[in-house]
Amino acid sequence: MSVPDPMDHGYIIAPNPACADLSRRVQGVDETGAEAALSVVEERPLTIYLNRREIVTAMTIRDYPEYLALGFLANQRMLCPSDKVTGIDYDAESEVVVVRTAIETDHEEKLARKTRTSGCAVGTVFGDMMAAIEGHRLPPAPLRTSWLYALSHKINRTPSLYLKAGAIHGTVLCQGDRPLVYMEDVGRHNAVDKIAGWMRAGGAEAGDKIIYTTGRLTSEMVIKTALMGIPILASRSGFTAWGVEIANQVGMTLIGRLRGRRFHCLSGKERLICDADPATVAEDDRKHHRKGAGA
Amino acid sequence: MSVPDPMDHGYIIAPNPACADLSRRVQGVDETGAEAALSVVEERPLTIYLNRREIVTAMTIRDYPEYLALGFLANQRMLCPSDKVTGIDYDAESEVVVVRTAIETDHEEKLARKTRTSGCAVGTVFGDMMAAIEGHRLPPAPLRTSWLYALSHKINRTPSLYLKAGAIHGTVLCQGDRPLVYMEDVGRHNAVDKIAGWMRAGGAEAGDKIIYTTGRLTSEMVIKTALMGIPILASRSGFTAWGVEIANQVGMTLIGRLRGRRFHCLSGKERLICDADPATVAEDDRKHHRKGAGA
Repeated sequence: MSVPDPMDHGYIIAPNPACADLSRRVQGVDETGAEAALSVVEERPLTIYLNRREIVTAMTIRDYPEYLALGFLANQRMLCPSDKVTGIDYDAESEVVVVRTAIETDHEEKLARKTRTSGCAVGTVFGDMMAAIEGHRLPPAPLRTSWLYALSHKINRTPSLYLKAGAIHGTVLCQGDRPLVYMEDVGRHNAVDKIAGWMRAGGAEAGDKIIYTTGRLTSEMVIKTALMGIPILASRSGFTAWGVEIANQVGMTLIGRLRGRRFHCLSGKERLICDADPATVAEDDRKHHRKGAGA
Repeated sequence: MSVPDPMDHGYIIAPNPACADLSRRVQGVDETGAEAALSVVEERPLTIYLNRREIVTAMTIRDYPEYLALGFLANQRMLCPSDKVTGIDYDAESEVVVVRTAIETDHEEKLARKTRTSGCAVGTVFGDMMAAIEGHRLPPAPLRTSWLYALSHKINRTPSLYLKAGAIHGTVLCQGDRPLVYMEDVGRHNAVDKIAGWMRAGGAEAGDKIIYTTGRLTSEMVIKTALMGIPILASRSGFTAWGVEIANQVGMTLIGRLRGRRFHCLSGKERLICDADPATVAEDDRKHHRKGAGA
């Protein structure tokens, strides 16, 4: 597999499966007992600090530690839109990334409260995220089915760590039929957090964007996307009932089980413009069929 | 789909996809714009308390809240093997489950320290779990390839919420070629935590068991299984490099990408007994092909 030129596909950031730091060959045996080597994705700890406070240790492929830290803190509401970030220092050896803000004092109490209820089973600071979504309404963005098919086609054919080594999730920030920023990660929500970090660092507009993901459309994924201000979320995977409820509540268009010509829209069907004839779209061919990253 | 009799398949606990509380029909549209209803899995919050202390809010299908709470606390080392559990109270209305122990005082400081570093991106109390694995060695359990094929065959044909509604993970506690306890959940690690809870409640032996899962073989999954004392972990999904490293370190047999006749063993190949001819095993047929729950 050759090194991809992101711009070949119109990407601003695309996966770099040729990077030696992101996967390695591991020797084992196959079902016949014969020696067999497999490309396996790396997974490394990264401890995120906000100023002097240790927030979390994330398992990540560690390709964009600064975006991951920034996006994680923004998505968890530990960093507000008005907070001025004065620096992000990443130290590979100590496996630490520190996000520094101009004013740090008033985070302490808030963080103490947050981390008390934060936890493990869901990967979210549940109460605060639910509170943040109250009264939240997304702009009523139209979605053309021709965009969905074009995005699937392009993304599934983009060289990726997933195609090389499997066991990884992908999330892509898109605009219309164009994929812009394609992030992958082993950590469940790291890929979308890295996109949030990229958006915050560059001040990217959210209201005209689409998130395409390989992960399931759970409440947490819907809430994150909504808090990022993105009105359309599409996935190869399925829905949870609560994810659908929240999407309806905030006015998000939710597309799931997007494979080949097929998909379901369980929220926002009134904004869906069926401008493509599904019969002209090829079924998922096996070569580009994502086997499902699992989790 | 009829209500399964768990004992038909030799299960002690099997999924109950017919249960009305676990999924619902949601109305939407398909790719042609036509009205289409879909079975979608439920996802509900459940707040777990240890005595008077709030620990975490998990997103779960909430079919076994007591096992989930017990297994979560045990797997996070917030409940030690020596701790006497005096009661578990679940209140569906307030969405709370409380695990009570005979002695509660010495947990406070430990928990305070744990929750400070616990977080969201990884779904684990990282430092403590890594410390717990130090010097940990699993019993050298043999694994027959005939068991793997028999387990896959039985599990893939067991009526499940996954087959009904998708977007859910499954984890099965097995012994030899027999699946015993089949748990499903939307939450990433809830399925394995429910198994840990069931094992702790009944005092089940761990050294002769196998965990079969649909999720990826990440460091966290390997550590949880190791701390449960289970020497064999098999998955339909792939590996991370660190998951493989830890499995080798603790003496766990690790099987991944188990689909139809194919699999890879990246740790413990010396304990693998190739007693089945892969050529006699049917390839995954489409009907029973898990589409990948994603995450």
